[in-house]
Amino acid sequence: MRLVSFIRPDGTPSYGTAVADTVLDAGAVLSPKYPDLKAVLAGGAMSALEGAGAALPLADVTLLPPVPNPEKILCIGLNYLPHILESGRPHPEYPSIFTRYPSSVVGHGVPIERPRASREFDYEGELALVIGKDGRHIAEADAWDHVAGYSCFNEGSVRDYQNHTTQFWPGKSFERSGSMGPWLVTPDETGDIREKTLTTRVNGTVEQHAPISDLAIGIPEIIAYASTVLTLRAGDIIVTGTPGGVGRYRTPQLFLEPGMTVEVEIGGIGVLRNAVVDEAPLP
Amino acid sequence: MRLVSFIRPDGTPSYGTAVADTVLDAGAVLSPKYPDLKAVLAGGAMSALEGAGAALPLADVTLLPPVPNPEKILCIGLNYLPHILESGRPHPEYPSIFTRYPSSVVGHGVPIERPRASREFDYEGELALVIGKDGRHIAEADAWDHVAGYSCFNEGSVRDYQNHTTQFWPGKSFERSGSMGPWLVTPDETGDIREKTLTTRVNGTVEQHAPISDLAIGIPEIIAYASTVLTLRAGDIIVTGTPGGVGRYRTPQLFLEPGMTVEVEIGGIGVLRNAVVDEAPLP
Repeated sequence: MRLVSFIRPDGTPSYGTAVADTVLDAGAVLSPKYPDLKAVLAGGAMSALEGAGAALPLADVTLLPPVPNPEKILCIGLNYLPHILESGRPHPEYPSIFTRYPSSVVGHGVPIERPRASREFDYEGELALVIGKDGRHIAEADAWDHVAGYSCFNEGSVRDYQNHTTQFWPGKSFERSGSMGPWLVTPDETGDIREKTLTTRVNGTVEQHAPISDLAIGIPEIIAYASTVLTLRAGDIIVTGTPGGVGRYRTPQLFLEPGMTVEVEIGGIGVLRNAVVDEAPLP
Repeated sequence: MRLVSFIRPDGTPSYGTAVADTVLDAGAVLSPKYPDLKAVLAGGAMSALEGAGAALPLADVTLLPPVPNPEKILCIGLNYLPHILESGRPHPEYPSIFTRYPSSVVGHGVPIERPRASREFDYEGELALVIGKDGRHIAEADAWDHVAGYSCFNEGSVRDYQNHTTQFWPGKSFERSGSMGPWLVTPDETGDIREKTLTTRVNGTVEQHAPISDLAIGIPEIIAYASTVLTLRAGDIIVTGTPGGVGRYRTPQLFLEPGMTVEVEIGGIGVLRNAVVDEAPLP
């Protein structure tokens, strides 16, 4: 199943599934019990989405991030092994975790915004997973049971703000600087996510291309580590890190400008595509 | 005014004001319109709290963090000037910002928890402020207008997890590892917060003692910087950094153990007091 959250043509929010070139509006049927997709996941009711709701043309809705209101978005820093080793660092022992807020993420097909405050707006193609079941102190052996599905993520980064101090948060939380989608694909449909490949294109040119199997710290280890710290909840998003090829380390550097388009494609999931615009001027 | 959120003796949550040794249960009157204190702030309705609600003995309620459900808790790293200079670092140009989740914070009088995963559980006494009015791109000159009030914060830190990588988040978000309270005091009652002094005591012994005026990056600069990144919303919490004297840099080191008590006192606000217990064992 491909789970989506979206804005209907009449401007109201809903959720459901994507089937071919339509979305089935499950929210029209289920919203009295489950106001949003996060509530569906928390209620263990994902199977209720199957075939539920009337079909709307996909082209007529505005896609939101699959889970637009997660409690947490945990991002993993530098986590692709070849890129780590080529930069002379040792194999990491622990995941490097920072956070983003949901206001920093838009859906597929919605423009991402270069902030007024910086000209160093960069892309980071990443695999995101969504937690389907609450858990604390989750053992690595049980971690896959807590994954509801996968999505593509552009972990848009404002490099000067990221490096103002040791802490990355300012560069990672600019409003509408990142994106997620187009949908959340359940593991039965993706197949083994470790066998897939991630590709990031800017204006159609491949800039990042790496197998998911290159993750230095894998999905079970990340889930086990994060859940040692706190309870992972249904709808939480974990963004697993980006491979080599980001704009700031490219020769010459490549920063995003209005008019460009970024695509993040992962096998078994699809293509997340966003144009780049400038943040609106101050009123 | 001293704003509080609390659990009533019957187990239901509410909010209101603290007056002498009572709390006035404003939530009993206002909750149809404002379900929690964050909603009161977002509605610009703080004046409706004044004198509202029946009195309950303070000793009969369980205090929550003054805003138990903030959208954001932004914490500032190393920000007390003498401590920065004595450690050989230059005056910082930008605030170092990381985040905590609300599940990491308990109220006054509720035990904080040393996690099972670590023996390096440390205190950090800090001044916290709460945002009273939404804003993006807030000018320093306007920043004070966005402050609803102040509280004491123990930014409890798990040092080994904080330093597993460059990113502090894992050491800063353990469940129930920090605390905030006892109440949120409005600026008309605190007076100029920059003229106050922060003191942290462990088992009654002073371990941190510094004037708020030692903040290297002041409150207006922090608000202006953070609101360049994203919209600050009513109820958001900014924790302004800790002075020298934390346990890990003490000789000998002083880590928190069950049975200890930590107090954070700030002039014009009050004393935040929490006992230390161990996280419950795995079931």
